[in-house]
Amino acid sequence: MVVPSLIQRKREGEALEPGEWRTLIEEYVAGRIPDYQLSALLMAVVWRGLSADELAALTDAMLASGDRLRFEGLGRPVVDKHSTGGVGDKVSLLIAPMVASCGVAVPMMSGRSLGHTGGTLDKLESIPGFRTGLSLREAEAQVARLGCAMIAQTPEIAPADGKLYALRDVTATVESVPLIAASIMSKKLAEGLGGLVLDVKTGSGAFIPEPERAIELARAMITLGETRNCRTVALLTAMDRPLGRACGNTLEVEEALQGLGGEGPEDLMEVTYALGVEMLLLAGVEPNAAAARRRLETSITSGQALETFGRVIEAQGGDATVIEDPGILPQADAVEVFRSPASGTVAAVDPRIIGRAIVELGGGRNAVADAVDPTVGFVITVKPGDRVKAGQPLASVFARDATGIAVGLEALRRAITTDGEPSPLPLVSHRITGAGVEAL
Amino acid sequence: MVVPSLIQRKREGEALEPGEWRTLIEEYVAGRIPDYQLSALLMAVVWRGLSADELAALTDAMLASGDRLRFEGLGRPVVDKHSTGGVGDKVSLLIAPMVASCGVAVPMMSGRSLGHTGGTLDKLESIPGFRTGLSLREAEAQVARLGCAMIAQTPEIAPADGKLYALRDVTATVESVPLIAASIMSKKLAEGLGGLVLDVKTGSGAFIPEPERAIELARAMITLGETRNCRTVALLTAMDRPLGRACGNTLEVEEALQGLGGEGPEDLMEVTYALGVEMLLLAGVEPNAAAARRRLETSITSGQALETFGRVIEAQGGDATVIEDPGILPQADAVEVFRSPASGTVAAVDPRIIGRAIVELGGGRNAVADAVDPTVGFVITVKPGDRVKAGQPLASVFARDATGIAVGLEALRRAITTDGEPSPLPLVSHRITGAGVEAL
Repeated sequence: MVVPSLIQRKREGEALEPGEWRTLIEEYVAGRIPDYQLSALLMAVVWRGLSADELAALTDAMLASGDRLRFEGLGRPVVDKHSTGGVGDKVSLLIAPMVASCGVAVPMMSGRSLGHTGGTLDKLESIPGFRTGLSLREAEAQVARLGCAMIAQTPEIAPADGKLYALRDVTATVESVPLIAASIMSKKLAEGLGGLVLDVKTGSGAFIPEPERAIELARAMITLGETRNCRTVALLTAMDRPLGRACGNTLEVEEALQGLGGEGPEDLMEVTYALGVEMLLLAGVEPNAAAARRRLETSITSGQALETFGRVIEAQGGDATVIEDPGILPQADAVEVFRSPASGTVAAVDPRIIGRAIVELGGGRNAVADAVDPTVGFVITVKPGDRVKAGQPLASVFARDATGIAVGLEALRRAITTDGEPSPLPLVSHRITGAGVEAL
Repeated sequence: MVVPSLIQRKREGEALEPGEWRTLIEEYVAGRIPDYQLSALLMAVVWRGLSADELAALTDAMLASGDRLRFEGLGRPVVDKHSTGGVGDKVSLLIAPMVASCGVAVPMMSGRSLGHTGGTLDKLESIPGFRTGLSLREAEAQVARLGCAMIAQTPEIAPADGKLYALRDVTATVESVPLIAASIMSKKLAEGLGGLVLDVKTGSGAFIPEPERAIELARAMITLGETRNCRTVALLTAMDRPLGRACGNTLEVEEALQGLGGEGPEDLMEVTYALGVEMLLLAGVEPNAAAARRRLETSITSGQALETFGRVIEAQGGDATVIEDPGILPQADAVEVFRSPASGTVAAVDPRIIGRAIVELGGGRNAVADAVDPTVGFVITVKPGDRVKAGQPLASVFARDATGIAVGLEALRRAITTDGEPSPLPLVSHRITGAGVEAL
């Protein structure tokens, strides 16, 4: 395989053959193509994009580089949800037990916090004892038993993606719609799903802020899923402000428990219900959206969803008493209230500033190997459009010490602005399926 | 230095700061930036280009990575010529002794054959004993003594360019106007020149075939030279057919000796005179082009140029009897005449087919470390526009054996075509200076 001539053809905007992508990925994973050739090729892909055939071949090659979950003969539909990443997005913690308690198998495989965005695994691991590192066979058995597992990507899942992602991270080749689509879908298709619901974030806090490109990403992923026996639907949701009130690992687990207890913030619950409805419809367990919504609401009011979450926590080694007593979660040493500096209308709550401040407080990662402090973060009780008075409490900072409190207060001062007209994005703006894009 | 953020800025089309380019090159040469980051950055440069300031900073950083020739106090103007590379281009072998015998110092530093193009060093080394690996101090001393040295790029000259070029070669990032300009000029500026004449090839056999991009390359190099105390002029010359008749190392030395003896093919001599005139004008040794041309013609008719070549050969360890007896050069074992398959008008003589065939015959390189057979090649006696008759001898193949002869004959069959209208490029089409572009 003459790699420079493949790079040259991609550089000139030509589509490589599916077999060429397959060989490229195989040889790269085997260590027979050096990083410096792959990184040049990846930059050419950022530049020129990938054709639909190339994207499919790359995704399949990454999928084929590893093992996968298998649910043949389970007797239940298998559906998962994936989010492209945001701030305050704890939907996974709610939706997995809610949907599982409606008779759908949910083998949820999640990631860790990265950049300014949080990660479901870090949130789960703030529950004392919770173990996310299940083997694929353990995960299959737990899904068969409880209808749900909440696990980390194992090294057997799409190892090519892991190796490629590490290279993209240090060569500024992350922000590419086809490369993001291939990375996400190679892992999701390895979950052995019959259906997948994508939560594609838009707005200033999203990795791809522009709605047009977010829709492009959604369509690319839908095509990949639908042509591989995994029915796929996407919702575009707002990430121009944090989702819900809590931002930070322990704080988000507490808010998720409130939500499962029927006391969640309205925006968080609306996004959770919207995505959950799509999951139940893909699973075919309810005939229409209204029925699916009622079923999900019942999973909360009946206590079934919370109970399922407790069983999952227990099965994965966690302290399930957290269900009744969130006070067992580790708590921040320092807490301070942030008060509005002026009267007016909240114009914006910048999710990137909040997300970066959590990293600075020790609650996120600059590098993959960084440890995470689960206790730090923010609870922000205002949204764009809210009227506020000078001196009114708008948020709380949770930190290790006075230095952290100062960092957190300064971040809130910059993030919550009252000058300018509030123009928040619709919470759920578009529904995208194989049939097309529907504005909501 | 956070390399991924620099790559990202370049990827987004931003210009990096001169200091950032300086540090990038320093750190890369020191081994503190890995190849995989540089190759992604280089592909981003192929994509986005470089601003004039970036190009200057990159060139200066590559120049500063090594040593340079010094000719302060020499008492003679110092001028060189550089060609972007072609097939049959033995101009350097003629022009260095011609211009040196007109009282100009010519410290000619050349390259080896690469891809389908020949290299002056390989041609010189077909002269028994000829040594191109002079140290910088040896080269300076020889230029002071004889007015001319014909040497290889030493490892002390722009080592950053050597390291970068090796990476570009295997990552399909060679074909970039600013990267080519920086590579050429970092080496040429290290020669301590007061003037530089660039022979920028255009047409199907050139690395940059399109005249517009060739002019762009010329202008970039001229700006770099002129702003660094090296007066720089470029001529655009035709590489849509081989230059002269001989293609191949020994064969080209023989043709150069014919040229120095007053018997060179017309096209070769015209290009040589045109470039030589520019060198004499830059050196200031003649007041105008007509006088410079007469001076160069006299260097041939007087035998001075041939004598100078002989002295250079002797000084560099070569067998100077070659001047009188080219028969001492190594000769091909097999020779065969190629006859015109049909009557008609020659439409084209494809230089890439000829150049690639020389590589296949063993006379060029696929990889830098390949050895070169000096004896193989072609002598092609027809040009586009010539009327030919069926059975008329058009060319000769020089090869190791019958297999090589067959390869060579087949290449000639494909390269020399008689269908279609001949439309050869003008031999010298444009003259480009700091003041602008002049069509000739």
